[in-house]
Amino acid sequence: MGAGHSGVPTVNVAALNRQLLGTWADVRVLARELTARPDLHRIEGQSMTEHRDRVLAQLKILADNGHVHRAFPKDLGGSDDHGGNIAGFEELVTADPSLQIKAGVQWGLFGAAVLHLGTKKHHDAYLPGIMTLDTPGVFAMTETGHGSDVASIGTTATYDPATREFVIHTPFRAAWKDYLGNAARDGVAAVLFAQLITQGVNHGVHAFWIQLRDESGAFLPGIGGEDDGLKGGLNGIDNGRLHFDQVRVPRENLLNRYGDVAVDGRYSSAIASPGRRFFTMLGTLVQGRVSLDGAATQASAMALTIAITYGSQRRQFTAGSDTDEEVILDYQRHQRRLLPRLATTYAQTFAHDQFLVKFDQVFSGKADTDDDRQDLETLAAALKPLSTWHALDTLQEAREACGGAGFLAENRLVGLRADLDVYATFEGDNNVLLQLVAKRLLTDYSRKFAHAGTGVLARYVVAQAADRAYHGTGLRTLAQTVADFGSTARSVGALRETNVQRELLTDRVETMIGEIAGKLRPAAKLPAREAAALFNSYQDALIEAARSHGELLQWEAFTQAVETTEDEGTRQVLTWLRDLFGLGLVEKHLAWYLINGRLSAQRAQSVTAYIDRIIARLRPYALDLVEAFGYSQDHLRSSIASGAEKERQDEARDYYRTLRASGQAPAPEKAPKKK
Amino acid sequence: MGAGHSGVPTVNVAALNRQLLGTWADVRVLARELTARPDLHRIEGQSMTEHRDRVLAQLKILADNGHVHRAFPKDLGGSDDHGGNIAGFEELVTADPSLQIKAGVQWGLFGAAVLHLGTKKHHDAYLPGIMTLDTPGVFAMTETGHGSDVASIGTTATYDPATREFVIHTPFRAAWKDYLGNAARDGVAAVLFAQLITQGVNHGVHAFWIQLRDESGAFLPGIGGEDDGLKGGLNGIDNGRLHFDQVRVPRENLLNRYGDVAVDGRYSSAIASPGRRFFTMLGTLVQGRVSLDGAATQASAMALTIAITYGSQRRQFTAGSDTDEEVILDYQRHQRRLLPRLATTYAQTFAHDQFLVKFDQVFSGKADTDDDRQDLETLAAALKPLSTWHALDTLQEAREACGGAGFLAENRLVGLRADLDVYATFEGDNNVLLQLVAKRLLTDYSRKFAHAGTGVLARYVVAQAADRAYHGTGLRTLAQTVADFGSTARSVGALRETNVQRELLTDRVETMIGEIAGKLRPAAKLPAREAAALFNSYQDALIEAARSHGELLQWEAFTQAVETTEDEGTRQVLTWLRDLFGLGLVEKHLAWYLINGRLSAQRAQSVTAYIDRIIARLRPYALDLVEAFGYSQDHLRSSIASGAEKERQDEARDYYRTLRASGQAPAPEKAPKKK
Repeated sequence: MGAGHSGVPTVNVAALNRQLLGTWADVRVLARELTARPDLHRIEGQSMTEHRDRVLAQLKILADNGHVHRAFPKDLGGSDDHGGNIAGFEELVTADPSLQIKAGVQWGLFGAAVLHLGTKKHHDAYLPGIMTLDTPGVFAMTETGHGSDVASIGTTATYDPATREFVIHTPFRAAWKDYLGNAARDGVAAVLFAQLITQGVNHGVHAFWIQLRDESGAFLPGIGGEDDGLKGGLNGIDNGRLHFDQVRVPRENLLNRYGDVAVDGRYSSAIASPGRRFFTMLGTLVQGRVSLDGAATQASAMALTIAITYGSQRRQFTAGSDTDEEVILDYQRHQRRLLPRLATTYAQTFAHDQFLVKFDQVFSGKADTDDDRQDLETLAAALKPLSTWHALDTLQEAREACGGAGFLAENRLVGLRADLDVYATFEGDNNVLLQLVAKRLLTDYSRKFAHAGTGVLARYVVAQAADRAYHGTGLRTLAQTVADFGSTARSVGALRETNVQRELLTDRVETMIGEIAGKLRPAAKLPAREAAALFNSYQDALIEAARSHGELLQWEAFTQAVETTEDEGTRQVLTWLRDLFGLGLVEKHLAWYLINGRLSAQRAQSVTAYIDRIIARLRPYALDLVEAFGYSQDHLRSSIASGAEKERQDEARDYYRTLRASGQAPAPEKAPKKK
Repeated sequence: MGAGHSGVPTVNVAALNRQLLGTWADVRVLARELTARPDLHRIEGQSMTEHRDRVLAQLKILADNGHVHRAFPKDLGGSDDHGGNIAGFEELVTADPSLQIKAGVQWGLFGAAVLHLGTKKHHDAYLPGIMTLDTPGVFAMTETGHGSDVASIGTTATYDPATREFVIHTPFRAAWKDYLGNAARDGVAAVLFAQLITQGVNHGVHAFWIQLRDESGAFLPGIGGEDDGLKGGLNGIDNGRLHFDQVRVPRENLLNRYGDVAVDGRYSSAIASPGRRFFTMLGTLVQGRVSLDGAATQASAMALTIAITYGSQRRQFTAGSDTDEEVILDYQRHQRRLLPRLATTYAQTFAHDQFLVKFDQVFSGKADTDDDRQDLETLAAALKPLSTWHALDTLQEAREACGGAGFLAENRLVGLRADLDVYATFEGDNNVLLQLVAKRLLTDYSRKFAHAGTGVLARYVVAQAADRAYHGTGLRTLAQTVADFGSTARSVGALRETNVQRELLTDRVETMIGEIAGKLRPAAKLPAREAAALFNSYQDALIEAARSHGELLQWEAFTQAVETTEDEGTRQVLTWLRDLFGLGLVEKHLAWYLINGRLSAQRAQSVTAYIDRIIARLRPYALDLVEAFGYSQDHLRSSIASGAEKERQDEARDYYRTLRASGQAPAPEKAPKKK
């Protein structure tokens, strides 16, 4: 492979596929054999009840197969493989997102909460039943009144030393647990989050094991609930509501890894700060965000595989020919709609693999300092919003690019979009997550000024890019570089340079954060309400800065992937695709670069022209690039991507060709002569 | 009403409601009484079959009520009221978009084709059964192989003088009729579009009346079909496929208003040019695009009513207070997500009313010159894409802004979004429509240079805005104005000026079109293929120019509406909202204004700052502005917009207030002292 004849590069699709599969390629290949099984597939058009039944049965298949046990301890039949577990889990999205998310509820949330928040006695007592699905369970955290702000949930767990029990109680309607998978029907137990109150003190949110239903499926005394009913998607999952009226559970039901209550009611915890304890407990649940990032990226890859395959076969309108219609992917607009989204999907795929490696290091204990855990949280909060929004955008654009055919359920795009919709707000509302990223960037920024020159802000970036122009030189030097930028990189060609793209993207994040930090400085001296109002007046700008940070992380990951690509032809094509991603970001934020004097008007104008050129250059590789994702028809199951469109087009063209050759074709009506 | 005490403006909601209801306010008020009826409402979660049954029964209610007969001739029981008909039709979207679109298939496409393409004998024979729904029918135009390019459909209708019949035939699979409402189940007849061939000449696409099914519902001999099955939405409609094997229909079945075939096979038409004849025939079907523009705008208005009502009651996170959580609409980001979309929805509402007036003038014959019809087509092609995309964007943002609650079917947003999805590609794919607009703008541009200075390009705009600064002075003078712009309107305040916004928006459209026209000039001398390639290389830019033209039309309509608002306070608030819309457009295209020297970096930066200020100023009016849309709970039927959230919040706050007052509240755990 490599450069083909006459210097035109060719893509080594098999090698690229392996690269895209990433660190846990073997797990993914195995998982894709599993997800090719028809009995794990979504059947479009099932009623909510049928779909719930089917998904529950499918969960049992996953449990029996062991596919979902990798993260559990070896001594209980798992393999202590955290990264591999998430990789395998993500792949379920091609079978049915309901299956994926219901599996996520059972093993990724309910099971993981027991694993990470409980101690040995809880593991031994509960994990076996969770792993086999003998105990389907609920992760009862969110309430009708509190989603993003978990610290403020209303449910209470008050310790009663007289009976050595916790009393679980829902004090008002807004404190009902809500939107909980497995709650409406299948869940027999729950990990329930409540304010732990003992000896008159509220120690904040803790998790408790609680039995919900008896063997007949009826709620135990004091427990009630409701079905959330039909949703915009994911209707294979029985989301529902729960409420508790003074329900007593034994003291031992507290999942006591991070905090415990003695028989006499004394509270103890190895983590002294209540705030830090809360974030430590919640931090163990980051895997939800990790896996949504991966699953959303896979859904985008599937959508583009379908739309680009169809776009390469479908013909519509003649363009300068009397007989042959154009393949629609040859229209510039069609390319503009799909290829930049393909570039973003590649960037996300590579960024996700790095993210997953980081997750695995923390959860395996290979690298789990406080800093590592905070970095992981920030990565999750930066990447999950971008990829879940990108999936919705890409699924919709792909649907529209396939016209009426895209709207048919048989072509998968509408079903996937409906299911993925909620990925944008669950496991952390995207806007709230980006705000967390922004706060972290602000913190790092102020730390940097405290310990000048350590470059903490761009921690991940710097660590990943040893050759970065201003590595370790701090903001001041970068500002200098930027000031010189207009003269040092005048030509259009400079935009193709890796370091130029890096500087443009990095500079933007750092400048935005620096500016906002300056504007927020007075807040420290203001009364709380006024400080909050000042912060609120920059909320939108902060979220934009956080988004740009996430984009930079994706760009860095893409660049690293390009640099490690061995096949020359593949590397060339990936470089173009990376340029398309990088310059697409610059184009999106072009006004900022102009206003801030980073790009002249002339060079800014050349960005769009250059993007048009890259897109035209990438067009011949579009099919290779989606083929490299590696989905078979068993995963796509989209009739318009099956080759049926090509058959129809060939038949129609043959018909007209034969008709013309026969001399029997009707003549076109002659237009009247102009006067 | 007007300015309240201390000079703070107040909104006269009732008067504003009347203004938003527009020219056919009475029809809309009546229609909303109808759409409030529970038997016309969508029942979420019905199976496809149940939903189809229900919608068919609802159609019968509409037929009996006469709601859908306004466009038909008076002598057949209609009222020849074309504008009122569309206004009433649009309102059906609040009941169920499936009901709306199935009604549109029956009376707006199938019935309208008989009305506009047939002659008296067809009207008398077919319209009564169509109006009563005794003859449910199909509008059989689109084929699997041809959607946007109707002129290239494959179905043939070959005249056989021996039997005085047309032979309807489907020559290959791609020529199957597809995606047709009423085709899978209910349609007993169709208006079928096919290439009319007689005496060895193809006279292009014509429409034919054809019986599809017998009284038992079985296909007649030679006719076959398939069900399109489940779709992403609109599942109350039985879309399907049809194919024909040498099916014979009498000569009289040709809907012969624009072209006829004599007994001996001679073809005749009052329109000599085949191209013009084709566009005239298709032009009669513009009402689909008109009504989608209106319906999509109503769906956006409903989404914003729901999200803004919920956002005004929902609380999450404290901001500078120990006890009180913030109403989420008080967060800047939340305002940024919803209020600019509200401004766009207002602009669309006003633009739609003007569009509908134009439609009514053409179809009533009050003003139906060729130019009028072309203007109407271009308006439709410019406005329908913008409003249908806006609806999807707004429904999604509203859904996310309501979090998990937004994902529940009971809150309506996901269902509406799923149904509206296909509005972006049916009745003309949005991208294809915008290309038509661009071509018209290019034509007008070149005409202008032929007959210098007549200002044809901005035809609608000029006609609507007598006070426009450069009215009738042509491009050259405008360019001069623009060159002076930097000095004449230096202050930030200038951005609030109506004329400044108008110049910025108009100049952009005209400059873009002028530039592209210059680049395309060589095409005239190139071979067809190369000319097409040149055109293709500017396709994306052309579509962007067309979009800007549509935005300008919306802005002009909004501005006109502001100018005719009598209540002073309402006018003030609407002016802010119009500014938000206008400056939002400038912000979106900021890079263009910078690159082209229309705004300095300093003023460009002030655009965003000023938008932030307008949004904060509009916040207190958000509820008034959605209330003015005039939807009752019978139309919204969204539990989160019913006041339930306020009840929950009040109950929770009362609980904590009482608890604090009792002295029994648990104390928060003290953070450890810092070392």
